[in-house]
Amino acid sequence: MPPGPGTVIGIGDDAAVLDAPDRRVVATTDFLLEDRHFRRAQVGPGDVGHKAAARSLADIAAMGATPTALLVAFAAPADLPAAWALSLAEALAAESARAGAVVAGGDTARADTVILAVTALGDLAGRDPVTRAGARPGDIVALAGPLGHSAAGLALLDAGLATSDGLAELSGIAGSAGFHELAAAHLRPMPPYDAGLEAADLGATAMIDISDGLVADLGHIASASGVRIDIRAASLDLSGPLSEAARALGSRAEQISRTDRGDRQPPPDPLTWALSGGEDHSLAATFPPGVRLPPRWNVIGEVRAGQGVLVDGETYAATGGWDHFR
Amino acid sequence: MPPGPGTVIGIGDDAAVLDAPDRRVVATTDFLLEDRHFRRAQVGPGDVGHKAAARSLADIAAMGATPTALLVAFAAPADLPAAWALSLAEALAAESARAGAVVAGGDTARADTVILAVTALGDLAGRDPVTRAGARPGDIVALAGPLGHSAAGLALLDAGLATSDGLAELSGIAGSAGFHELAAAHLRPMPPYDAGLEAADLGATAMIDISDGLVADLGHIASASGVRIDIRAASLDLSGPLSEAARALGSRAEQISRTDRGDRQPPPDPLTWALSGGEDHSLAATFPPGVRLPPRWNVIGEVRAGQGVLVDGETYAATGGWDHFR
Repeated sequence: MPPGPGTVIGIGDDAAVLDAPDRRVVATTDFLLEDRHFRRAQVGPGDVGHKAAARSLADIAAMGATPTALLVAFAAPADLPAAWALSLAEALAAESARAGAVVAGGDTARADTVILAVTALGDLAGRDPVTRAGARPGDIVALAGPLGHSAAGLALLDAGLATSDGLAELSGIAGSAGFHELAAAHLRPMPPYDAGLEAADLGATAMIDISDGLVADLGHIASASGVRIDIRAASLDLSGPLSEAARALGSRAEQISRTDRGDRQPPPDPLTWALSGGEDHSLAATFPPGVRLPPRWNVIGEVRAGQGVLVDGETYAATGGWDHFR
Repeated sequence: MPPGPGTVIGIGDDAAVLDAPDRRVVATTDFLLEDRHFRRAQVGPGDVGHKAAARSLADIAAMGATPTALLVAFAAPADLPAAWALSLAEALAAESARAGAVVAGGDTARADTVILAVTALGDLAGRDPVTRAGARPGDIVALAGPLGHSAAGLALLDAGLATSDGLAELSGIAGSAGFHELAAAHLRPMPPYDAGLEAADLGATAMIDISDGLVADLGHIASASGVRIDIRAASLDLSGPLSEAARALGSRAEQISRTDRGDRQPPPDPLTWALSGGEDHSLAATFPPGVRLPPRWNVIGEVRAGQGVLVDGETYAATGGWDHFR
């Protein structure tokens, strides 16, 4: 892993030393655990490395900061093929590079399963950090990046309507180009890192990355800011690949229930994917009213006095949201 | 976990924001894995938390920096008692406080075993980082902190000459006060954090913390600096508790070999513990000749032209050193 321009001391010493020109450093750490967050039989090492990097880097962007470096703690069984580890490392480096960061350190150990704990560091370049706590009644709520795509992609993969021997092989998957796009959104989410800094410059009052699900994550903002957030379902983009995927999965479920007489599952629903799917690592932010947002920011609701999150005026009933010990 | 004076944004947001007054940040991450680095049946949660913090904080000190913050990624089985996790958290916070740092963030997940990946951050306060690469022929080699104590303590614990239901219970262990001290050195190593900064101020040319073993770790300095390091065995402090422990373990081994007729193990040897034991997290540093060192720095050798590490002029034959995938 080559050093970057901000690397004072890189890999190979007791610790890395990195530039922090702002005199503050943004720091976050996230697990990606085999058999908890992924299964090695179902995803490739490139997918795992990509997602491990993206999860942590998106948290830096969600503070309104620019990612600068990753520290990667990586444990694996002794019989893990070296090629698997090398592909993982390449994907970590590639997604870091897309975010403007370098892999600057880490740790290795043996374990029964693959364990990744990725720390990302970032720089605020003089900006105030955008926390979860600054949303005010009257602010608008906007989203940069796709919503529900990761959940739809997972449903397609689970149903065998897309395959996932790593992204390299994704070009051969069954289904439409849209299905490929959704599977890729699940396997290799592409957080819009620079939208975090853009939001900070546009005066964002609060921001979060969508990891647990839109309602759950906006709930974190509502709770930290002491406000209510109203989402308009009609403003969410559920057309295109999401609708196609729901139709295909619905037909598949019909076939199965006719032949198996098994319990009927609730029909696949783009709105559920969008509201509670999570793992898109898109950015949701609140902005003062009257802000002029660039086109990639889609306004999806408003901040009101009160508490909690409402969808079209109602409490959202799904169990949505990720319980880390569930 | 309360914020510290350098905490801009603490626990509870997408990422922490921490002061980095030096415009550079020192960063390291280390695993502490159940069934790899510890067994839950053999150590208490306070021991685990203490060691997880100390391992990472010692790496910051070994760069000549002051620890400022920890990010703790913690995974555990769903049936882990809450009291266990709370004791772990308290110990992490306590050892961080001893180093002058706070726990400022982290992640949680469910897993089949306890997994800790601890990231430590530190500040150089205007000093140059002390790397492994600056040792020059003619420099002296000195050590701050105990050597071989952790390995001797582990041997005592394994032999049942000390018990370890957590440090709280250590006051009741069998054997001398010295055995208690050695068991504590294994369960709760106490890196001399401020000696790292002191070494930097004294002009240390290279520094490392003793985690893999003295010969292995000085080997890292020799390799990175392109020099040879000569250790004088007579300069190592092997008296007191180390000799007592070796005698007690030797008698115990005699008894066992008489009754079991099992394979005779090599006799316990304080020099082996000191040269290859590791996990003491003491600091070894090289200094320019003529430096006046405070009493806690014990001169143990010299830097010469060449390569590798010699003990009394000979290659050290033990397998010493920690292979992370062994």
